[in-house]
Amino acid sequence: MNLTITDVRLTPILVADPPLLNTQGVHQPYTPRLIVEVETADGVTGVGETYGDTKYLELARPFAAKLAGRKVSDLNGLFTLADQVAVDSSRISGQVDVGGLRGVQTADKLRLSVVSAFEVACLDALGKALGLPVHELLGGKVRDAVEYSAYLFYKWASHPEGVAAEKDDWGAAVDPAGVVAQARLFTERYGFTSFKLKGGVFPPDEEIAAIRALAEAFPGHPLRLDPNGAWSVATSLEVARELGDVLEYLEDPALGTPAMAEVSAGTTVPLATNMCVTTFAEIEEAFTRDAVQVVLSDHHYWGGLRNTQQLAAICRTFGVGISMHSNTHLGISLAAMTHVASTVPDLHHACDSHYPWQSEDVLTERLEFEGGSVTVSDAPGLGVELDREKLAFLHRRWLDDDGSMRERDDAAAMRVAEPGWVTPAVPRW
Amino acid sequence: MNLTITDVRLTPILVADPPLLNTQGVHQPYTPRLIVEVETADGVTGVGETYGDTKYLELARPFAAKLAGRKVSDLNGLFTLADQVAVDSSRISGQVDVGGLRGVQTADKLRLSVVSAFEVACLDALGKALGLPVHELLGGKVRDAVEYSAYLFYKWASHPEGVAAEKDDWGAAVDPAGVVAQARLFTERYGFTSFKLKGGVFPPDEEIAAIRALAEAFPGHPLRLDPNGAWSVATSLEVARELGDVLEYLEDPALGTPAMAEVSAGTTVPLATNMCVTTFAEIEEAFTRDAVQVVLSDHHYWGGLRNTQQLAAICRTFGVGISMHSNTHLGISLAAMTHVASTVPDLHHACDSHYPWQSEDVLTERLEFEGGSVTVSDAPGLGVELDREKLAFLHRRWLDDDGSMRERDDAAAMRVAEPGWVTPAVPRW
Repeated sequence: MNLTITDVRLTPILVADPPLLNTQGVHQPYTPRLIVEVETADGVTGVGETYGDTKYLELARPFAAKLAGRKVSDLNGLFTLADQVAVDSSRISGQVDVGGLRGVQTADKLRLSVVSAFEVACLDALGKALGLPVHELLGGKVRDAVEYSAYLFYKWASHPEGVAAEKDDWGAAVDPAGVVAQARLFTERYGFTSFKLKGGVFPPDEEIAAIRALAEAFPGHPLRLDPNGAWSVATSLEVARELGDVLEYLEDPALGTPAMAEVSAGTTVPLATNMCVTTFAEIEEAFTRDAVQVVLSDHHYWGGLRNTQQLAAICRTFGVGISMHSNTHLGISLAAMTHVASTVPDLHHACDSHYPWQSEDVLTERLEFEGGSVTVSDAPGLGVELDREKLAFLHRRWLDDDGSMRERDDAAAMRVAEPGWVTPAVPRW
Repeated sequence: MNLTITDVRLTPILVADPPLLNTQGVHQPYTPRLIVEVETADGVTGVGETYGDTKYLELARPFAAKLAGRKVSDLNGLFTLADQVAVDSSRISGQVDVGGLRGVQTADKLRLSVVSAFEVACLDALGKALGLPVHELLGGKVRDAVEYSAYLFYKWASHPEGVAAEKDDWGAAVDPAGVVAQARLFTERYGFTSFKLKGGVFPPDEEIAAIRALAEAFPGHPLRLDPNGAWSVATSLEVARELGDVLEYLEDPALGTPAMAEVSAGTTVPLATNMCVTTFAEIEEAFTRDAVQVVLSDHHYWGGLRNTQQLAAICRTFGVGISMHSNTHLGISLAAMTHVASTVPDLHHACDSHYPWQSEDVLTERLEFEGGSVTVSDAPGLGVELDREKLAFLHRRWLDDDGSMRERDDAAAMRVAEPGWVTPAVPRW
């Protein structure tokens, strides 16, 4: 058995995305992802995926060039290696990148977001080489299926007229009735039993009404609302008061740890985040100030599956809950999320996943939600297989793009419909 | 490849221990250890070791009985399983067990101390089955050798007359000259370049003099002093003032997090601990109060090698250093310590190890220190081999014991020489 990496392939792609609304604007019709493959001397291939914007791609290329000759089992070494790759300082701000909805932008975080795809690809290859599922490389699953929540979005029926886009069959959702209808579709199609609404789109009263409508339609089911930091502390506390009886948690009502700590001090509704705690460096302040009660991990920007396990251990130690955040992603990442989630002992909330919104994938077979859960695969590696034709098709779309879709920009997409649109200042309400 | 556990063997043993002094008393001539073996359906055997006192053995037996039919790769499941084993409440106090020098005694900690031996044995078996060294099962080594420090002890030339004991060739060390002579022997035999003195034995002035003598004999070398919590806050601060210019860190000068926090606030000498932070539950208070700057992990009571990695991640996140504690242990544990230490990126202090004091072992070949370091093995599993004759010999000693050596009791051993000896109250000075 030779675990040495002999080849690495990077394939940027564009995948169809419905017109989902958030506080920044609307999803573009296509979103960039990067597919990573590592191949060993024995011809075993492992796959990973991460964000596909140019800044990730720029970093992934020199990183990939360093991998040949290393072993897929050398996972700790990936981080040492990443530190050797220079990050273009114009790509990072050190501040919360509001436009990206992914929290602070730092060089380390950018590196980790890239490393994660390679870590997952190495784990996949290692698992295949050893005949073990990825969860067994992570110490073994403690559950056979991982529960996900329905990720509800305000959305338009279609992308603006004249914009090249794939069609979706979800219809519009711009009011409480539309949100409830969407939730019903989610339960019918996937069996989800908990619901998260992406908020920050309409004034808080309208979103409160939507959550109330969900609570009536699905009494007793866990509900969450996530305005991506669009609210002031006062507004956050008002929403918490209004919805305290039905919310499982409120996600990033206000932006940044100090604001979140203020909200937290004023309500008993648990606060979750994927914006103010997105790096290990942000943990100490947030935890010592009791700013958040649930961290929503995203293995992409935390640096992979083993880092996610470490994050879970830190949360456990400090009495903070853990669950999972999701950005637009494909089946490789859903498989990765499911493997690692299956190994985290105290996962008390259903994880988020965008996957139902992605009609396209690069796998031969899509992963399935049954009763809102994904069964943990016991096949070697991630248990997924790359469909090279689909990959080539989506890569061709990336090649053919004039550059306008290669950087996710929800505000730019919104300007197509509303020419004067600019990224709203926060707090928006 | 069948990773299913088909057999588990527990072998309590007694190993020779020199008359090493500490604040509680003196090491008994023999100390109990428990050797754990797990065997898979394919006949692959993995080994682990842990504390061997009866309370550990009592817990290991029902735990071992639950393992058959599980896979050696199911490491996360070991913790779930351990929770199902009842702990005799008379075995735990919830308080710091001063006599044991191992920090707080809780049911969870007792369970983890037992689990760790099984975790290591499972990792050893898994590595052998897959043809991978344990460090590769932990994400891969980031260094090829792990540095250890010379663990200096005040000691007698021999155990009290009339007591059955093995002889040692280290001679006595009861004053500065004796400590320096012992340190020279350590450097000659093993090449250690940093030194830790177990203190709390003589009044602080004498121990300060010993450290000063070491500093003169080994100028510029890292020095540590560990009185096992024997001092008051005032005494701790006085020692810190006296030795601030030569100490790498001061280890557990005072007992418990509140006292350590007071000491920490009054000195710039870093404080290390293996007594006030010995469980995940103790971390939050100690870290938020800045009570310690270095945690000395002991994989036995932290619950194994993967938990040690998690502890290291927590320390890294909170800007706290990490290194390793040692109690009397054999080569299996030294191998385990070396594998996990090789994977921890920010290990900035040489680890402690009692191993040089142990003339007996259960391995076919002893591990070697070269230049103070142990080379990380790339052989499958831990890279050690059990010597069944030696194991049987040491087990026979355990069987033949009248019970007096089966529980480590340094105060009882001291009473042989000083009949009126009782465990000193703390602070002792």
